[in-house]
Amino acid sequence: MSMPVIVVGALGKMGREVVKTIQQTPDLELYGVVDRTGQGEDIGSLIGLGTLDVVISPTLQELCVAAAQEKQPVVMVDFTHPNSVYEHVRMAIAYGVYPVVGTTGLSPAQLQDLADFADKADMGVLIIPNFSIGMVLLQQAAIQASQYFDHVEIIELHHNQKADAPSGTALQTAQMLAELGKTFNPAQVVETEHLPGARGATAPENIHIHSIRLPGLIAHQEVIFGAPGQIYTLRHDTSDRACYMPGVVLAIRKVTQLKRLIVGLEKIL
Amino acid sequence: MSMPVIVVGALGKMGREVVKTIQQTPDLELYGVVDRTGQGEDIGSLIGLGTLDVVISPTLQELCVAAAQEKQPVVMVDFTHPNSVYEHVRMAIAYGVYPVVGTTGLSPAQLQDLADFADKADMGVLIIPNFSIGMVLLQQAAIQASQYFDHVEIIELHHNQKADAPSGTALQTAQMLAELGKTFNPAQVVETEHLPGARGATAPENIHIHSIRLPGLIAHQEVIFGAPGQIYTLRHDTSDRACYMPGVVLAIRKVTQLKRLIVGLEKIL
Amino acid sequence: MSMPVIVVGALGKMGREVVKTIQQTPDLELYGVVDRTGQGEDIGSLIGLGTLDVVISPTLQELCVAAAQEKQPVVMVDFTHPNSVYEHVRMAIAYGVYPVVGTTGLSPAQLQDLADFADKADMGVLIIPNFSIGMVLLQQAAIQASQYFDHVEIIELHHNQKADAPSGTALQTAQMLAELGKTFNPAQVVETEHLPGARGATAPENIHIHSIRLPGLIAHQEVIFGAPGQIYTLRHDTSDRACYMPGVVLAIRKVTQLKRLIVGLEKIL
Amino acid sequence: MSMPVIVVGALGKMGREVVKTIQQTPDLELYGVVDRTGQGEDIGSLIGLGTLDVVISPTLQELCVAAAQEKQPVVMVDFTHPNSVYEHVRMAIAYGVYPVVGTTGLSPAQLQDLADFADKADMGVLIIPNFSIGMVLLQQAAIQASQYFDHVEIIELHHNQKADAPSGTALQTAQMLAELGKTFNPAQVVETEHLPGARGATAPENIHIHSIRLPGLIAHQEVIFGAPGQIYTLRHDTSDRACYMPGVVLAIRKVTQLKRLIVGLEKIL
Repeated sequence: MSMPVIVVGALGKMGREVVKTIQQTPDLELYGVVDRTGQGEDIGSLIGLGTLDVVISPTLQELCVAAAQEKQPVVMVDFTHPNSVYEHVRMAIAYGVYPVVGTTGLSPAQLQDLADFADKADMGVLIIPNFSIGMVLLQQAAIQASQYFDHVEIIELHHNQKADAPSGTALQTAQMLAELGKTFNPAQVVETEHLPGARGATAPENIHIHSIRLPGLIAHQEVIFGAPGQIYTLRHDTSDRACYMPGVVLAIRKVTQLKRLIVGLEKIL
Repeated sequence: MSMPVIVVGALGKMGREVVKTIQQTPDLELYGVVDRTGQGEDIGSLIGLGTLDVVISPTLQELCVAAAQEKQPVVMVDFTHPNSVYEHVRMAIAYGVYPVVGTTGLSPAQLQDLADFADKADMGVLIIPNFSIGMVLLQQAAIQASQYFDHVEIIELHHNQKADAPSGTALQTAQMLAELGKTFNPAQVVETEHLPGARGATAPENIHIHSIRLPGLIAHQEVIFGAPGQIYTLRHDTSDRACYMPGVVLAIRKVTQLKRLIVGLEKIL
Repeated sequence: MSMPVIVVGALGKMGREVVKTIQQTPDLELYGVVDRTGQGEDIGSLIGLGTLDVVISPTLQELCVAAAQEKQPVVMVDFTHPNSVYEHVRMAIAYGVYPVVGTTGLSPAQLQDLADFADKADMGVLIIPNFSIGMVLLQQAAIQASQYFDHVEIIELHHNQKADAPSGTALQTAQMLAELGKTFNPAQVVETEHLPGARGATAPENIHIHSIRLPGLIAHQEVIFGAPGQIYTLRHDTSDRACYMPGVVLAIRKVTQLKRLIVGLEKIL
Repeated sequence: MSMPVIVVGALGKMGREVVKTIQQTPDLELYGVVDRTGQGEDIGSLIGLGTLDVVISPTLQELCVAAAQEKQPVVMVDFTHPNSVYEHVRMAIAYGVYPVVGTTGLSPAQLQDLADFADKADMGVLIIPNFSIGMVLLQQAAIQASQYFDHVEIIELHHNQKADAPSGTALQTAQMLAELGKTFNPAQVVETEHLPGARGATAPENIHIHSIRLPGLIAHQEVIFGAPGQIYTLRHDTSDRACYMPGVVLAIRKVTQLKRLIVGLEKIL
């Protein structure tokens, strides 16, 4: 029996990809879709998959009411907006629907609130800021390596339409290493920057981050560890949103087995 | 109180590096050295460290007899030859000296024998085919990744004086992944090699290995995982024997806490 | 005054990209389009650019007749099929339209024929097997380097839906280096392949080529030169057909200034 | 008949390498050596090559006087110090010895002076700030590419005992590109650095340079060009001083054919 899934934000870039993935995954089934636009229309026709006999619902509530009648667990996947995700998750829990959230931007207070709801309902909730299994593996491998290497720098490379630097993922990676509680890159010499910025940004615990921006790049990150006589490099290259789908599928399969709110794909690998 | 260490094969390339490292490591102390040549001469003078007041002994036994009188554990580090290492380890155990072995080439039967000796003596023995912590971390990270990626290829790059291909470490890495019991790289198309060898060597479980040989290269290995929309690459570059020393020091510190024979640096990380 | 351009094969993958590029380039103007399908329909509507008031013509001849009346040179860009490109180019020359051809597969005899036509007509014709300026620059830089380096290997990496190995571009690159008339990679040792294929394919003049195939890869090529103490690497990564458009625009601008048939983007850089 | 060569600064790191290279190159012959130390001793014995029957001279003049008697041209290779190189070159020219200079730090006025001497003497003089043929090829290829790419960033990676950033070679490479007279990296968005320095140093004409410093690195430089859909990367890795020797040999062979002072290996490639 395949697992029914509701996709919220189904016409967004990630939502479309999730709908396609559910169609291609035998043990998953598209139960319903929600979006601000296209209501009443067939989602399959709108995104080029042919008719799927699943029309866009005007509200999540309508689908949750129906899901509550099902004899089996229903999962909601949410790629919407920081402003609406909190209410979506509350509603899902209220109706016994298991939330998998890719939308970022929940405040710590909101996260705590939702964790409390999940505890009371004895239900699994997954909040996944980064669905890329490859990037999570890289971060886990970097944490392992940082126990044995004292020197590390991060280079992240993105297309030149990205406005902020460093990337959120690079900062998060640096933060993960910094939490180990050691200061990296003890100086061998007094460094001089003849041109300011040459040595990159300095994240906590003295981890350097360098941000490259060029057309032709997509989204890439390198973590480079050095020790006398050796270099150990971890690199992740993203070229397509398809890379997030194995993580989404994994989260859908896992969330119904959980009893509480969990943040981060690494917790369920 | 620092740990006394005997270095066997002290005038070999690795032996010299070990002697230097012991000199620079506060909690380690050079107890004695053995080599086929230079007997009676000061090891420090011979390898450019200045007089160390440690002369090269003609036999390991002489040093083991002395070590057996010590009130604290003594460690032996052996970088010699497959023909002699077995006897060295037997002798060390017999006198209560803890062996750390970097020499490769012990047969499975010899390894079993030594493991039995270690058990009877209730002593730690470490057999470490690869002392590179970076490479071991790479291999561990590759094993992690291979649980989530179905496609992987290995590229190893070495100087053009290396005669054999693929490298032993690349084969070992492939073997580690193959032991997970899944077949990698399920075909999407029928591949045609217009020039034979283009797609590299095929190791067990369909893992491809490609060997590059060029002057200017030293010793490098990449393991590249692919999935739709993403590539995850692990790379290790070796430029100097110094890269093995953190592993040697770690093994020296650990071996006296063990009660049996262990093979592989990954077991003590 | 902008240059009028006819696009043949306008609904193909490359054709669409060319139409878009012409729309975005101020000194170029879409004069007409030809395709086997969609005749009579507006090309802009069909490829998502909005109405462009250019309908798909049933035949190239119709457009050539009209172009022959123009007071300024008209250019034809052809991304069609080996079976039809020869006739397209003959017709274009016959009507005084300047051909730029991205379709591959013309035989040497056909090429010679077309070169003769071009000479008689005193007209430029550009046959461009690879419109990627980046790749052509890489190949030119590789030719430069191969005069000073005696050791070189090529790695090409593509998605795992590519059936043939090595890639045509890698073979072409190797061929370009081989034409310098020296044998690369003089052996330092007798090499042994423990697993056949490890050392890759051997192209003429002993240039090794290694083909990697993984999902997540797109189209990538590395040429690696080695000499004692140094490695010099040239790498090109393609992620989108957009990368060919600067070459197409350059060819359109150049072809009307030529008086003969020229093969290869490198000749007009 | 082999070319006689005088090595000045023969006991320095580069000087030793030059002496070794001359010994191994059939058409070159070690004519004499100068150094501040070791005078009267055999250079071969001092640097581990066995007796060469060439003793270290106390002064360059002594050797120049002898060279002036030779029937064939003699070349001087100078890897000494900014303070002495000017006088060395003047003296060499005065005695008809052809100077090849790897010492950096001559002032523009001194260079002009030496160029005037060379002109008057109708003699070749080569001043080579960077003897790495690979790096010069990289720079030449980068200049080629920058005519077709509008976006470029430079990453240079060195061991963590290097105090200054960016490296002199990276600055020189940026300078070469800037001299083309175009401003690179036109902005697509308003960039924000959440951590200062993330986007690296900004060299003239808006070329970004990023400096990585880690133990285990030696000396590496990447120039990365980007355009929609493609990335073109040039990388040079140095692992040993041996990489400079082909450039030194080339300069020795060329200098006697020249009639004036030339700066830069690229001029004689």
